Amino acid sequence: MSFQFELQHVDGAARAGLMTTTHGMVQTPVFMPVGTQATVKGLTPEQVASVGTQILLGNTYHLALRPGDELIAEQGGLHKFMNWPKPILTDSGGYQVFSLSSQVKITDEGARFRSHIDGSLLELTPEKAVDIQQNLGSDIAMVLDECPPGDSSPEILQKAIARSILWAARCQKHHSRRDQALFGIVQGGTSIALRAMCATELLAMDFPGYALGGFSVGESPDAMHAALPECAAMLPELKPRYLMGVGRPIDLLAGVASGIDMFDCVMPTRNGRNATAFTYDGVVKMRNAKHRRDSAPLESNCPCYGCQNFSRAYLHHLFAADEMLGPTLLSLHNIAFYLRLMADARRAIEERRFTAFREACLARWHPQT
Amino acid sequence: MSFQFELQHVDGAARAGLMTTTHGMVQTPVFMPVGTQATVKGLTPEQVASVGTQILLGNTYHLALRPGDELIAEQGGLHKFMNWPKPILTDSGGYQVFSLSSQVKITDEGARFRSHIDGSLLELTPEKAVDIQQNLGSDIAMVLDECPPGDSSPEILQKAIARSILWAARCQKHHSRRDQALFGIVQGGTSIALRAMCATELLAMDFPGYALGGFSVGESPDAMHAALPECAAMLPELKPRYLMGVGRPIDLLAGVASGIDMFDCVMPTRNGRNATAFTYDGVVKMRNAKHRRDSAPLESNCPCYGCQNFSRAYLHHLFAADEMLGPTLLSLHNIAFYLRLMADARRAIEERRFTAFREACLARWHPQT
Repeated sequence: MSFQFELQHVDGAARAGLMTTTHGMVQTPVFMPVGTQATVKGLTPEQVASVGTQILLGNTYHLALRPGDELIAEQGGLHKFMNWPKPILTDSGGYQVFSLSSQVKITDEGARFRSHIDGSLLELTPEKAVDIQQNLGSDIAMVLDECPPGDSSPEILQKAIARSILWAARCQKHHSRRDQALFGIVQGGTSIALRAMCATELLAMDFPGYALGGFSVGESPDAMHAALPECAAMLPELKPRYLMGVGRPIDLLAGVASGIDMFDCVMPTRNGRNATAFTYDGVVKMRNAKHRRDSAPLESNCPCYGCQNFSRAYLHHLFAADEMLGPTLLSLHNIAFYLRLMADARRAIEERRFTAFREACLARWHPQT
Repeated sequence: MSFQFELQHVDGAARAGLMTTTHGMVQTPVFMPVGTQATVKGLTPEQVASVGTQILLGNTYHLALRPGDELIAEQGGLHKFMNWPKPILTDSGGYQVFSLSSQVKITDEGARFRSHIDGSLLELTPEKAVDIQQNLGSDIAMVLDECPPGDSSPEILQKAIARSILWAARCQKHHSRRDQALFGIVQGGTSIALRAMCATELLAMDFPGYALGGFSVGESPDAMHAALPECAAMLPELKPRYLMGVGRPIDLLAGVASGIDMFDCVMPTRNGRNATAFTYDGVVKMRNAKHRRDSAPLESNCPCYGCQNFSRAYLHHLFAADEMLGPTLLSLHNIAFYLRLMADARRAIEERRFTAFREACLARWHPQT
């Protein structure tokens, strides 16, 4: 197994580390742009790499449905298919089964559901989730877990956790690719007790990394921020910790402050497509008429292609005229911003000033004046 | 006036030349990708330049309506606004008034019409068309002309030509930017007599370049191919000749064979967005299921980013999954193809083998076997 994690710096609970995968190294804390259907929406891999992306996330559910994981394996694996030679993490598909497909039926065996594309009846078991990810050839795969809504009753949560623990063990038993690391996922909503119970069981299985699941599914940000420090502390110090599907810039900083190393979220690309940009001065809505004659760049210190070459007036025009280049440039900028935020956080951790860095960010984003 | 044209090589009626404009030199024959709304749809200027684009076309009608030519002037001109430092040609807006807007009323003074965007009542006169293009700051501007449908009666054609000649004189009189060349436009449908009459009048005005208009508006390709040699021969030998809005690869080769130097058309980008690719082996429909497992590139000798980095299987997947990257990659490839075709044609002219080159292309595109 070529997967390694080295904890390099600690600043309070915040950590800076180095992850080594089959397709290269990743400095943490790290944000992983989402390449759902074997492409980061609207961007070439060259553009994605140009802003410093270290690792991408691919979606097992989408790729298994279309074009199919066997086709991708036949084409040389996901890295080659989408021309991304750096590390890739794939999720297990569970989250999309619960959020996108219809007529979901869950038994201990697995999940049966209808495809959101053509309504065909499909099944996802722990073994199938592993097979698909092994076909895709990602550097990091995730166990299949049940993802009940965050506001489910304790009984439902408890049952889902018990099942997820069984599924994690079956995934681990079935997993065979030595060039791929399989991470466990701790569920439990905002209940510290349930999270602790789940973590104890999964830690005994000795996965090379652990994720916190279920935090993007309905909890209020405040409840998540409150639960994060304890939940992160349950995970092994010397293994990477991944907060799945989260979130806004302030959520990433709360995660880093709690000791999280890895993040993914569709917000930078989805919001970019909708003309909303993230900057160190807060959120910028590019459709706003005040940008119409503004010859300044979107963010003056940003090294992304859009900020280096175009004015706010031009970006505003692209969205007003419904031109594809608008979503492309803003998606790229937002990814660049998320990556800069994580790189700046890492530097702050190295220099033991992460708390001050985070507070300075929060003050700029929510000015008290 | 910094505009120059040097005729460098002749092979039959076909020509290779060098055009010098305020923003740089252009080797002819040349294809100009269309950047209607200050962007070539789906592509960054960096991508457009990466395939060897020498000069872009911008649309006066669209830019005057949105974001407005005065705003663009205030932002430093079209080159700076869209970050395209190389030459730009703008049309006069006349063609779009007749094809896109509604309630068009034409008098000798100019055209009144309603905007296709918000229905507002607007006016385009020869003087206004010049003012707009001077605000945009293109290297080459076009006179305003009336564009009747190609199948109009001789009376209507004749009246439109008479008016276009008056408008051309008014444009020339009003034009004052010495860093911008103003081209005349010869109309006349497929009537050689009308074209000759129009050309005689316009040649007397001594424009620095001449276009053939009205060939993209409804004539059958055969009628155009038949009329082109005589129409091109009416234009001055030592000035650039531009065939507006045409066309398919075979139309470009027919134009070059007739002595045309410049072309523009939305086909490469429009067809690219619709999953249709141009190659030296003919048209390729990327949605066709036969590409689903094809690991070969779209076109093996093509230097474009898509052909260098992705398989047909991947391109097929992008269109099946409705991902923006599909239109982007195919638009880029198609522009690359049109530019290669013109560069290859130029080389063939230099080596006095253009007829053989053209025949080899036609044989590959319409195999007789």
